[in-house]
Amino acid sequence: MTKVPGRVLIAPSGFKESLSAEQVADAIASGVRRTLPGAVIDRVPVVDGGEGSARTLAAATGGRLVERRVTGPVGRPVTAVLALLGGGAQGTAVVEMAEAAGLRLVPADLRDPGATTTYGVGELIRAALDEGARRILVGCGDSGTCDGGAGALQALGARVTDSAGDEIGRGGNALADVAGVDLSGVDPRLSDVDVLVACNPHNVLTGPRGVARVFGPQKGATPEQVDALDASLERWAEVLTRDGVQPRSYDLATGSCTGASGGLGAGLAGGLGARLMPRFDVMLDHVDLDGLIAGADLVITAEGSVDEQTPHGKVPAEVARRAKAQGKPVFALAGTIGRRARDVHDIGIDAVVSIVPLPLTLKESIERSPQLLTDAAERSMRLVLIGCQLGQTESQGPRPLLRSVS
Amino acid sequence: MTKVPGRVLIAPSGFKESLSAEQVADAIASGVRRTLPGAVIDRVPVVDGGEGSARTLAAATGGRLVERRVTGPVGRPVTAVLALLGGGAQGTAVVEMAEAAGLRLVPADLRDPGATTTYGVGELIRAALDEGARRILVGCGDSGTCDGGAGALQALGARVTDSAGDEIGRGGNALADVAGVDLSGVDPRLSDVDVLVACNPHNVLTGPRGVARVFGPQKGATPEQVDALDASLERWAEVLTRDGVQPRSYDLATGSCTGASGGLGAGLAGGLGARLMPRFDVMLDHVDLDGLIAGADLVITAEGSVDEQTPHGKVPAEVARRAKAQGKPVFALAGTIGRRARDVHDIGIDAVVSIVPLPLTLKESIERSPQLLTDAAERSMRLVLIGCQLGQTESQGPRPLLRSVS
Repeated sequence: MTKVPGRVLIAPSGFKESLSAEQVADAIASGVRRTLPGAVIDRVPVVDGGEGSARTLAAATGGRLVERRVTGPVGRPVTAVLALLGGGAQGTAVVEMAEAAGLRLVPADLRDPGATTTYGVGELIRAALDEGARRILVGCGDSGTCDGGAGALQALGARVTDSAGDEIGRGGNALADVAGVDLSGVDPRLSDVDVLVACNPHNVLTGPRGVARVFGPQKGATPEQVDALDASLERWAEVLTRDGVQPRSYDLATGSCTGASGGLGAGLAGGLGARLMPRFDVMLDHVDLDGLIAGADLVITAEGSVDEQTPHGKVPAEVARRAKAQGKPVFALAGTIGRRARDVHDIGIDAVVSIVPLPLTLKESIERSPQLLTDAAERSMRLVLIGCQLGQTESQGPRPLLRSVS
Repeated sequence: MTKVPGRVLIAPSGFKESLSAEQVADAIASGVRRTLPGAVIDRVPVVDGGEGSARTLAAATGGRLVERRVTGPVGRPVTAVLALLGGGAQGTAVVEMAEAAGLRLVPADLRDPGATTTYGVGELIRAALDEGARRILVGCGDSGTCDGGAGALQALGARVTDSAGDEIGRGGNALADVAGVDLSGVDPRLSDVDVLVACNPHNVLTGPRGVARVFGPQKGATPEQVDALDASLERWAEVLTRDGVQPRSYDLATGSCTGASGGLGAGLAGGLGARLMPRFDVMLDHVDLDGLIAGADLVITAEGSVDEQTPHGKVPAEVARRAKAQGKPVFALAGTIGRRARDVHDIGIDAVVSIVPLPLTLKESIERSPQLLTDAAERSMRLVLIGCQLGQTESQGPRPLLRSVS
């Protein structure tokens, strides 16, 4: 009788533009169950604050969603959702910046990160206040903006002005003229509310690794625009440092997390006194991921693409980091196995699995992704079970050729 | 210290139009070696008599290839190779029918199985005699013909005649008029030579499961042509039974193997007294596959496509059948995981692995197949090794949640 995993933890990311993290977890669970009908399967949809986070957290905690019409990144109104968490997280709202100012809301022909605004994010925060939230988690990621959070502050009542004392326009380019911030008009309800910004800690506001340089090009900026934007953000950091909420524990220009979502981190920290925190610490607050890992024999994660970006704070990297801290094996299912995917072995992902069963188009793959995930999970578990059988020496007859090589 | 496979046997098929079985085996071995640097890796390229078999067997035995210009399936000359095996198989020639009369040699606009001929196969057999072969293995599979082997017999000196005593034309349609076979002119050297035809035992010449009905449509026949061809082949079987080599141990119309390569099996058995044998028994003659399986902890096979056809006598099915007879785990790498691929678990393939790492075209997949195979082999072994670790209870700390469910 072969020993097989009795408890499997499935902790995937969502697949962008295709499946939520819950849907991914469910699809994988179906495949695992085919091979281990008696196993306990735990599912934790893992979110990083980017697209889908608000919906996933609302579903996971039994909370609800509130829809609001807000100003989109290019100024056109968009419908955005806000999550009001349930269960033990009652009183907590999740504002996902991608809902109001995400890159996917910026039409391709208007991709100018110097022009887009986080104004709608401020409106969503205000909506959370209207709903009585005592704690607001702001999820970053998938942003289409680079305005240092100035738009969000404006929406919340701040005056951002030039040297003549006039309000500047929206977007990062307008920060070239910024000379002062007046926070006296900021929504007073915020003084009683804890605002936590869930950030990628690697993102900083300015300089060679600043957001303009690192993310500007993918948001549509030319090299000249990148230089100008970076200079404007530096100016913005100076003004915020001088006129913003005091005392502060962040260097707003180069501190960890300040570059989150095109500088939204710096803006909310400087303008509202929000706390900037590593995204998974905030976003996994409501689930006991480490406890579930402790109970699991095997951990399965997943992401739309496993590639050279994965080690830099993506969901599978975080899951693997925590699993490895407890010595648990981890494999990751991937819609695409991209460049340098083998690097993920260095961060604790023991194996990567392709969900693609045959040559097909990206469109076909996305359309069929739940079935592909289920089938790939089954295929993977079948290989793991071959290993379970091989690893078991005492339960079989003599295996004279079984040698240890590692 | 985890017990891991110490000896791995790699026994794949070639990938049609892309890689030979040796190339597939080498690519897989590279991936296995990445994860098990100390393991002994045995490689057996497995051929079934179809495309690539002659080349593979020549290489595997240290033999040589002879090129001949012969009559192709549509009458145009083609260059075909013939293998003269080396080592312990000296004196054995391999004639691969696909080299002289394969479907890939039939232009798409000439796909009429009633018109194509095995004449070139007879010419290759003659070439083998010229080279002094004492034993001739005829590999079937991937044929583009349906002439009952009449063309091959004609090339070797037989007269195939109508009721007026005139030679009939080439191709299966001409057999509608067949009335007699005169074998007196057949190359006399054949009387001292053992001719073995490597067949899929499921293929029979006539009737509801006959070659015209089963393979005619994919070779380009319309339903009316299928009916006519089947009737012609029945007539041919009657004539061959009456005028052919005596005594015979085959029912030439419905006996196992008689339908191999559009009836080439029946023609060579009836006209030359060739022995029809299950293809793997002939083609694996020179390698001790069962002995290598006995020494292996794990068996890896592969095929271009793993699908509903796989259980019906394809290479992975044969490898799995033999591996399972010795209780060894087997997994199969596939360029395409097709319809009903999960059926292969019923015939002893424990797991199937996709080599496709991301959405791509068939062309890209074929061009990159060596690298894709290597990477997929590594990924698979990593999952097996996770299992080895899980299966090992005694070498780790307590694992209270590890339960047996099978």
